[in-house]
Amino acid sequence: MNENFGVRLQEHVRERGPLCVGIDPSRELIESWGRNDDVESLEYFSLAVLEAILDTVAVIKPQVAFFERFGSEGLRVLERVMSDARDAHVMIIADAKRGDVASTNVGYAQAWLDDASLLRSDAVTVSPYLGIDSLAPLLDQAQSSQRGVFVLAATSNAEGRIIQGAHTRHNESVEDFVLGAVRARNANFEALGPFGAVLGATRDRPSFDLTTMRGPFLVPGVGFQGASPENVARIFDRCTPGTVLPSVSRAILQAGPERSALRDAARRWRDDLSQVLT
Amino acid sequence: MNENFGVRLQEHVRERGPLCVGIDPSRELIESWGRNDDVESLEYFSLAVLEAILDTVAVIKPQVAFFERFGSEGLRVLERVMSDARDAHVMIIADAKRGDVASTNVGYAQAWLDDASLLRSDAVTVSPYLGIDSLAPLLDQAQSSQRGVFVLAATSNAEGRIIQGAHTRHNESVEDFVLGAVRARNANFEALGPFGAVLGATRDRPSFDLTTMRGPFLVPGVGFQGASPENVARIFDRCTPGTVLPSVSRAILQAGPERSALRDAARRWRDDLSQVLT
Repeated sequence: MNENFGVRLQEHVRERGPLCVGIDPSRELIESWGRNDDVESLEYFSLAVLEAILDTVAVIKPQVAFFERFGSEGLRVLERVMSDARDAHVMIIADAKRGDVASTNVGYAQAWLDDASLLRSDAVTVSPYLGIDSLAPLLDQAQSSQRGVFVLAATSNAEGRIIQGAHTRHNESVEDFVLGAVRARNANFEALGPFGAVLGATRDRPSFDLTTMRGPFLVPGVGFQGASPENVARIFDRCTPGTVLPSVSRAILQAGPERSALRDAARRWRDDLSQVLT
Repeated sequence: MNENFGVRLQEHVRERGPLCVGIDPSRELIESWGRNDDVESLEYFSLAVLEAILDTVAVIKPQVAFFERFGSEGLRVLERVMSDARDAHVMIIADAKRGDVASTNVGYAQAWLDDASLLRSDAVTVSPYLGIDSLAPLLDQAQSSQRGVFVLAATSNAEGRIIQGAHTRHNESVEDFVLGAVRARNANFEALGPFGAVLGATRDRPSFDLTTMRGPFLVPGVGFQGASPENVARIFDRCTPGTVLPSVSRAILQAGPERSALRDAARRWRDDLSQVLT
């Protein structure tokens, strides 16, 4: 890979449309497909989703929690899913929401962003609760291996507002503080930088000027959680094309296990999102 | 197990002393033991530490990031370490700092707190960035399986202050908001509850009255990060005996690979902490 993540993602979205499909093999969804919830079903579910959508979508976002619930065997399945996605040229955002002190984040950087790791992803989601500066090893590793990081700014769930809407000593919201810190890291890059923010679509347009970010947005909350393509378009109005990546999970996954139904659901969402985002 | 986590931890600390040893098999520490940084060394390092201290300490705290960096193989090593710790009746706090929306936290609860998981721990650390209420599946699972959860309140690193010291709309700090929410969950229990907070020792005594928590504190920052046993004693003055659990990692681990040196270092820290905390 010889292009920074922000630029690669933009090109990929231009080719395949602005849709990230969340791969969320929860007990609930696996059972809704008529299967027992075990590690074999975890693999069956995840590979079936990938196979159904790999020609249709730009990016997958495996939710690590649903693999981790089966321990090392679950992570082995995730490694397999990632390997197949790479072979199909589908980009991977590992939804891990990792974050710790800097010396520990070195370990998470190795897991998710190092070329030698079986879990290496095009980007990983991280949490800023221990401070933006503590994330430096993850941001540095991403930059050096042409990968990306999405920092949680404002998540799609209402319970998140208390802390994300709290005000720092500089009287800006935590959310704005995170967005500003990510933007600052992208300022060193010519066009787009590799550092992104997670900003849920289940909300109003924020006060922060998103058009100045020069990096990608990962946008959960679309579909089952209530946000529509129009909500996404409104929040990210005038942002650089190819930098806004809505993520849809349950609204597509529940169409399975039939491959053609999964593919049709993904195409519908992709087309609806393309229409309002370009 | 037929006693809630807070009570079990208290009894364990009374028997073995108030010390949690962090098992942090970082590249840096493994190489300082004169070994290559690979998955075999990960296992060697972790089991050597466990073997050296299992008669000496109450609790181990494996740092999940340093196992995760080797993907599924690293988690397999963690499962082995946990199994050996259980056999030796050493309690386990998985330092995972997980946290997501509620429907996803169901997955993390299954991974770290379900009786059927190979990664099951006596307690797990979690992050509140997506809201305290989003952690409900983890708290509920802990309660039903007699395990515990430590919610990050104030971490030991300086970079964490910006968000953890921000003020919510009720004009309390994020840290105090988290401490209050954990205390509220413990109010339903007769003596001690199973819900704890992470509160670093590298700081002043907080404004929040810690003596009202009725649950355990996990206290990082002791040793390498600069806090002394006296700092711990000052911050947690008059807290219920057996509820304050300082965690020491590098200051003990760097004594290896010699087993006797590791054991001596752990004993010294345990005795120093016992002296000021009882």
